[in-house]
Amino acid sequence: MEHTVRAFDQELAAIKAEVTRLGGLAEAEVSDALTALIKRDPQLAAEVVERDRKLDDLELEIEERATQLMALRQPVAIDLRRTLAALKMASNLERCGDLAKNIAKRALILGEAEPMAPLMRPIERMGRLVLRRLHDSLDAHSRDDLVLASEVWSRDREVDEHYESLFRELLTYMMGDPRTITACAHLLFVAKNLERIGDHATNIAEIVHYEITGEQLTSRPKLENLPGA
Amino acid sequence: MEHTVRAFDQELAAIKAEVTRLGGLAEAEVSDALTALIKRDPQLAAEVVERDRKLDDLELEIEERATQLMALRQPVAIDLRRTLAALKMASNLERCGDLAKNIAKRALILGEAEPMAPLMRPIERMGRLVLRRLHDSLDAHSRDDLVLASEVWSRDREVDEHYESLFRELLTYMMGDPRTITACAHLLFVAKNLERIGDHATNIAEIVHYEITGEQLTSRPKLENLPGA
Repeated sequence: MEHTVRAFDQELAAIKAEVTRLGGLAEAEVSDALTALIKRDPQLAAEVVERDRKLDDLELEIEERATQLMALRQPVAIDLRRTLAALKMASNLERCGDLAKNIAKRALILGEAEPMAPLMRPIERMGRLVLRRLHDSLDAHSRDDLVLASEVWSRDREVDEHYESLFRELLTYMMGDPRTITACAHLLFVAKNLERIGDHATNIAEIVHYEITGEQLTSRPKLENLPGA
Repeated sequence: MEHTVRAFDQELAAIKAEVTRLGGLAEAEVSDALTALIKRDPQLAAEVVERDRKLDDLELEIEERATQLMALRQPVAIDLRRTLAALKMASNLERCGDLAKNIAKRALILGEAEPMAPLMRPIERMGRLVLRRLHDSLDAHSRDDLVLASEVWSRDREVDEHYESLFRELLTYMMGDPRTITACAHLLFVAKNLERIGDHATNIAEIVHYEITGEQLTSRPKLENLPGA
């Protein structure tokens, strides 16, 4: 029996290490996509697009290993929760990678257009906030830190506020100079993608909370009924 | 032993029925959100926003029941796959509900603005295509229909093509009449949401395929490197 338990723990630790690695890759993708956009670096943007495959492959691998582990060891209680948490983490992180890839593709397009310096400041600010949330939620995951997870979760609104303000700013810019419409439309989606990455950080905080306590965090604080929501 | 197997099958069938119900709710949300947008019906839009809670609750319930079932019966092989598939289905359908809610919120805003009749035609066309994909993928799920699932999966590009063309059309419209910029920005996100719902239909087709065969469908056909992608 003890032998079985140890084998389970070993394999789960290995899967968790893969999730941590996927988290690191996702963070790098988001960070590099943002840098590529702001510094107008097409080579870095192309790298982000290319590297996304790695995240897809790693997600599949984690999924297969976690499913195998469940079939082989049939975990219950906390062990089952931890295995399911790994699956959910992988799915959220893979989506963050997709969103980063999408930002990188837009960075490639925007790199060919006129620079829009005044808009880059608020995009960068929002990007840094989202990256910090993603980083903190991943920290909470790798350290099983319930306090940090709750902190990330409860500050979900900050990103929404940045997004709302960027949405309005971008529309104003488009109206002021219709030649910027195409570029601003891409930036609208960049802002939306950053907001979604922030949501995934919130999801990750919820997964960590569920993994440790077995309880679902619900009724997340949200800005309802706002224009760009 | 036979008693245990039957109890598992019964509970899994009950969970699958819940997933089918969630699928029906998600379809109705997407369909009503689209109608509310096209017919400029604020009451219907408000109903869609309000009803989204039901989908969230049902997803949580499915998640709890499936987790309970795994803890209690420790399924392996096809039984494990079917249980995990229910979890994934629920998560994809809940996201479709979120996206429909977001379309409904934008329908409320657009209902206060000037009607944009010429743009409604292509939005409606894309909406119908996406609804058909969602419907077919749910059919494939409830009938365990591998052929239909593969068909949905292989026609993933059609939605992308509609989206690309709408993206360009909306930008042209904004440039032609800058007073439509705000409304068109909301329609850009409506189009993006519809594209995402189409992606979820593809995901559902992949889940059905995995559930039945145990194999992952990978390298989905995609339009890469296009402007609005």
